[in-house]
Amino acid sequence: MSLTVVGSIAFDSVRTPFGERERMLGGSAVHFALAASFFTEVRVVGPVGDDFGSDELGVLSDRGVITEDIERVEGGETFFWRGHYEFDFNTAHTDDTQLNVFGDFEPKLSDESRAADTLFLANIQPDLQRGVRAQCEGAKLSALDSMNLWIETARDSLLRAIGEVDCLLINDAEIRQLTEEPNLARAARAVMDLGPRAVVAKQGEYGAALFTREGFFALPGFPLEDVRDPTGAGDSFAGGFLGYLDSALADGGDADEALEDANLRRAMGFGTVIASFNVEEFGTERVARLTREEIDERMAKLAGMTQFDALPA
Amino acid sequence: MSLTVVGSIAFDSVRTPFGERERMLGGSAVHFALAASFFTEVRVVGPVGDDFGSDELGVLSDRGVITEDIERVEGGETFFWRGHYEFDFNTAHTDDTQLNVFGDFEPKLSDESRAADTLFLANIQPDLQRGVRAQCEGAKLSALDSMNLWIETARDSLLRAIGEVDCLLINDAEIRQLTEEPNLARAARAVMDLGPRAVVAKQGEYGAALFTREGFFALPGFPLEDVRDPTGAGDSFAGGFLGYLDSALADGGDADEALEDANLRRAMGFGTVIASFNVEEFGTERVARLTREEIDERMAKLAGMTQFDALPA
Repeated sequence: MSLTVVGSIAFDSVRTPFGERERMLGGSAVHFALAASFFTEVRVVGPVGDDFGSDELGVLSDRGVITEDIERVEGGETFFWRGHYEFDFNTAHTDDTQLNVFGDFEPKLSDESRAADTLFLANIQPDLQRGVRAQCEGAKLSALDSMNLWIETARDSLLRAIGEVDCLLINDAEIRQLTEEPNLARAARAVMDLGPRAVVAKQGEYGAALFTREGFFALPGFPLEDVRDPTGAGDSFAGGFLGYLDSALADGGDADEALEDANLRRAMGFGTVIASFNVEEFGTERVARLTREEIDERMAKLAGMTQFDALPA
Repeated sequence: MSLTVVGSIAFDSVRTPFGERERMLGGSAVHFALAASFFTEVRVVGPVGDDFGSDELGVLSDRGVITEDIERVEGGETFFWRGHYEFDFNTAHTDDTQLNVFGDFEPKLSDESRAADTLFLANIQPDLQRGVRAQCEGAKLSALDSMNLWIETARDSLLRAIGEVDCLLINDAEIRQLTEEPNLARAARAVMDLGPRAVVAKQGEYGAALFTREGFFALPGFPLEDVRDPTGAGDSFAGGFLGYLDSALADGGDADEALEDANLRRAMGFGTVIASFNVEEFGTERVARLTREEIDERMAKLAGMTQFDALPA
């Protein structure tokens, strides 16, 4: 029961109709790790610059995340993203991106990170994802995220990377773009033909849909009257999803057990719930002080919001 | 247990990436009535021209729909819509609209139509909706649909019409537009403050969400590998939804009983299922030969696709 995530660690400056923040802790690996930390031991692999301080490390270590494989590049600056959202929170508008140390990132995994049961390849260049996947050949469970940039510029590498993992988590529009198949169910099947046994289509506020060879499951986004910043929602979803599945590997189980239908559905629920907390405040603010009790309480509410009896009483 | 629907009866010429049809039977009242006919006795109120023949009437009467209140306007032509869809089935592109007899429509209800237990005001001018609502003052249950045109051109009338029904079924973007509230949960609450006890946000392929004063429920669209024509999906959803609720009024029950949470959830399921059949073929083709057994079978599948246990086994 251990999970390694490789991805970006960032400072985010974000403006939404409900406020703004300068240089918050962010990045896909950070949002993922915080979410997964409620279920398992998490190690983060990613680069930071001299500007990354003990406050930022503290947010992670306070949640029990192991930060030893965060690589500090001397003289470098941490990846920086500036963006804003209008009232349509499904669309992020990028105002500035400075890759900084992330531009030359060559993932270096310690023996402990390589030995993890579960591996998450957050959205980075697909050849780097493949390199990390090869280093973690003993991982029982692996998943990756990607984005339109890599579909457009490194499609063949991305298809190979997808073929080497158990699960793809990606935005629904990107599944269509990747497979050049407008029907989502067909697109998900085309992804599974490449290798993955599970495909999660992230759908923003509409929730997420899970496709496996055996069936289909979907959950709506948890309804919220106050959404302040959607940044990191998808990574929080992935962290809750994969963190829970890693915990299902406990006691020597294998991927077949972890990926049983009931586990996958519960993983979808935990992903949905943690993502919903993530968007209630800016950056990592809400998840950093979240408790397992709050998660379980919202899980029970979500389960209640999505069940019905097909047959009249 | 009886339902009256007032709305458009049309000929639709539709082109999608999967084929095209000229002058198919269509219109919101038609799609709604066919869907509702699986649950209750349905009467259709709407105008047609001389071009509307026995073949078209037969599609309705074969499903048991009572067509006596279909008004034939001598010398007139039936409402005509021509449109197409690209691969994004969530967006209809209108190429031609000829209101014809629908442009001068003044709903005339027979005593039998006025006496219905349940009334559905499909998408027509809001003052006409109010007039019909007033004629059916004995209806135990009433609902309406609308569209961006009326929000933009007859907002005050529409707000009053909404205040006079039990349930609003409308696209989620239009709920936001109507209430000028970008957050859907807040927007739905604003609608309920006007009067309705239930608000259904239709979300295209993403499914539908139900807001009541007591809670929230949502269902994904039923996953389909073959979608050929989405025209009428929203009206089919409304027909399945309200048709089932009307059947729950049986045996002298009142709206409080019909709108119990378990009934509303099941109604959402029936709406989702019938809409999913509707889009599998063009126009009314699929629903016209649909059976209750097929509906119940898909309902059971849908229930299975949306349930999970919050607590680990």
